[in-house]
Amino acid sequence: MNTVAAPQEGAIRVALLGCGTVGGEVARLLTEQAGELAARAGVPVELAGIAVRRPDKHPELPPELLTADAEKLVTSDEVDVVVELVGGIEPVRGWLLAALKAGKSVVTANKALLAEHSADLFEAADAAGADLYFEAAVAGAIPLLRPLRESLAGDRITRVMGIVNGTTNFILSAMDSSGAGYAETLDEASRLGYAEADPTADVDGYDAASKAAILASLAFHTRVTASDVHREGIADVTAADLAAARMLGRTVKLLAICERVTDDDGVESVSARVHPVMIPRSHQLAGVGGAFNAVYVEADAAGELMFYGQGAGGSPTASAVLGDLVAVARNRVVGGRGPRESAHAALPVRPMGQTPTRYHVSLSVADRAGVLAQVAQAFADHGVSIAAVRQSDVGDRASLVVVTHQAPDAALESTVDEIGRLDVVHEVVSVMRVEGEDQ
Amino acid sequence: MNTVAAPQEGAIRVALLGCGTVGGEVARLLTEQAGELAARAGVPVELAGIAVRRPDKHPELPPELLTADAEKLVTSDEVDVVVELVGGIEPVRGWLLAALKAGKSVVTANKALLAEHSADLFEAADAAGADLYFEAAVAGAIPLLRPLRESLAGDRITRVMGIVNGTTNFILSAMDSSGAGYAETLDEASRLGYAEADPTADVDGYDAASKAAILASLAFHTRVTASDVHREGIADVTAADLAAARMLGRTVKLLAICERVTDDDGVESVSARVHPVMIPRSHQLAGVGGAFNAVYVEADAAGELMFYGQGAGGSPTASAVLGDLVAVARNRVVGGRGPRESAHAALPVRPMGQTPTRYHVSLSVADRAGVLAQVAQAFADHGVSIAAVRQSDVGDRASLVVVTHQAPDAALESTVDEIGRLDVVHEVVSVMRVEGEDQ
Repeated sequence: MNTVAAPQEGAIRVALLGCGTVGGEVARLLTEQAGELAARAGVPVELAGIAVRRPDKHPELPPELLTADAEKLVTSDEVDVVVELVGGIEPVRGWLLAALKAGKSVVTANKALLAEHSADLFEAADAAGADLYFEAAVAGAIPLLRPLRESLAGDRITRVMGIVNGTTNFILSAMDSSGAGYAETLDEASRLGYAEADPTADVDGYDAASKAAILASLAFHTRVTASDVHREGIADVTAADLAAARMLGRTVKLLAICERVTDDDGVESVSARVHPVMIPRSHQLAGVGGAFNAVYVEADAAGELMFYGQGAGGSPTASAVLGDLVAVARNRVVGGRGPRESAHAALPVRPMGQTPTRYHVSLSVADRAGVLAQVAQAFADHGVSIAAVRQSDVGDRASLVVVTHQAPDAALESTVDEIGRLDVVHEVVSVMRVEGEDQ
Repeated sequence: MNTVAAPQEGAIRVALLGCGTVGGEVARLLTEQAGELAARAGVPVELAGIAVRRPDKHPELPPELLTADAEKLVTSDEVDVVVELVGGIEPVRGWLLAALKAGKSVVTANKALLAEHSADLFEAADAAGADLYFEAAVAGAIPLLRPLRESLAGDRITRVMGIVNGTTNFILSAMDSSGAGYAETLDEASRLGYAEADPTADVDGYDAASKAAILASLAFHTRVTASDVHREGIADVTAADLAAARMLGRTVKLLAICERVTDDDGVESVSARVHPVMIPRSHQLAGVGGAFNAVYVEADAAGELMFYGQGAGGSPTASAVLGDLVAVARNRVVGGRGPRESAHAALPVRPMGQTPTRYHVSLSVADRAGVLAQVAQAFADHGVSIAAVRQSDVGDRASLVVVTHQAPDAALESTVDEIGRLDVVHEVVSVMRVEGEDQ
């Protein structure tokens, strides 16, 4: 790293909060590509300070830039923009609100914070005339939020569906190719560095749910927070689920799905959910392996769009952060501002139970007359229409696979509960929602 | 269509030039979604006038908006933004320069004009402090230019490679699945409405070359015009080419390829080319069928990204136009400006002959000793290294397929010329460049 030069006149001065994998990469690129960035931004972009918990642990950084006092740094007169890469809600929320109130623009990758408190942050940004950018918060390097906020601003987005968590995608891809179980594959992912020491945020779907909240908010011009998102992780996905999927030419992915739904009475609402899903192997999301992310967007005029790329990692995330930094700098130069919060549609959030889904149910049943009739009756009793049935005999038992048409998720769930209690059903082998096919 | 209301105070007033498939859709959405658009833009967006060649041919449009005098409309005091959907270079170039000089912002889908005259247009926009947006000019509905101009502004793009012309992609996909020849498939495409009455601009690669020039300019911060782009169309692609590709697990696509190359002396240059390419069937671009577009972007920090969606059609293109219109309107509201031309890198354009490529050559040769040695010697004489050879006998002839490593395109071309003159070579069955594999 170069030593720090004297501040250049008119430069945009950046405070970096956090200097781990992503922050280190941002600091490196800001220094090494200073000339390029200045040419693109129309003004030099310089590091004014770096707040880390333990400055003595960062011998690789210029000591005169380091501080442990983030609170002081974010409102310093020496700072124009705060880049936040610490993560978590407190104390970061306080720092960023203070920065925005002091007129500093903010670039952040903090999905958890945005999924809970974006309204407060946008209000503070608006009041101060400052920018708030967060491309890196969802799908890492993939330019996804700017297209949603800007390119599609003249269109009506109806659906956003994608793989937004690399850890769970790595685990499900590995389970699919090896046939191994969840616990074993998680261990392997940890060994290879694809899962954190505490993998809860990823495997239980919290990370994906935060991203779903951000995507739904932008796509539907409605405030959707993480608590509005129905969330199921992958810890209950079994080798049997993947085997059942494989038999039907499908695979299993953890998807974030945000939808705008108009019900029979013409009432519009939105829903956001994260759960494992069976999709056909021919679906473009099925081929997205390892730690990659991919997001499908459907809009009235644009039709189907897909965005694909690396969803995490130091360099890819730094690319997104620097793109935002250049935008903030350009806005300063020309005297404009980035897009503000757009929550004018304010649509109600539909609970999961009322959201239309399709189920794949794989059962081990007694091999005798009348079993299929009983099972089919249970679906009919809940108003659920069956799309496909496949029965095959294994000794004195039979394997029965049922794929339904769309029905409210609550109806599907109660149907499965009831079927599990039938005497003729030995075991509910696998229950999973189905997406990416005709309804 | 509604009748025209009195102008709303503070509204952004739009002049529409051209009202065919895309223009009609823009006019419809501006009227039907006026409330939505106003909420997103922060200000009403209204049609102030529509210039068409024959106003009497448009009974579907409000007569008080129609005019045949585009030149007058674009500088009218009633107009804030000009949306140009006429296409072609003259007289459109003059209209848009006049509009920009009068301080009107411009949104255009005119790839031919931008590929030749973007420098003039950007200069006029800069001088007047007006915006120039053109998302719809490349890859229709796919948000591609905004990500390149803005999201990746802090990264270093090394490669842009994609399917940017739907007509040729439809024809090549159809030839691949039917085994039919080019002429027959073009006829079918015309019958189905996938090819224009005069298909020259598409099948000879002019359309894709214009888009390649625009993409290379944005990606590499360098002025690249259509005449800098090496261009080959698909008229010479034969059923034999597709059969040869199929035998090797490949398919043929017309790709636009823009690259930043650093030579052995550390000198940087860019290249832009459009030609048919063999790619592995496992490559993500191979699966892009019909009239869809898809573009791969590689950047130092972001890694590999892909963008996929509908590349043409009234609605998809209108989506891109309206996104730009909302951006222009927002910029007016907050007093800012969109991104300007960024040509600061000003890298030299490398001629095709010096651009490194790989060839696939399929030959019909005499089936006798020494033939392979002669062919291999011809490659060696031109300094071209061979990656793979496959020989198979058919009666007294043999089929010989050679795939090379990377070499300057001119060296590959001369090698093929020389091989074609060898006595032992009966026929050069297929010559095609190869992409999407290790070099």
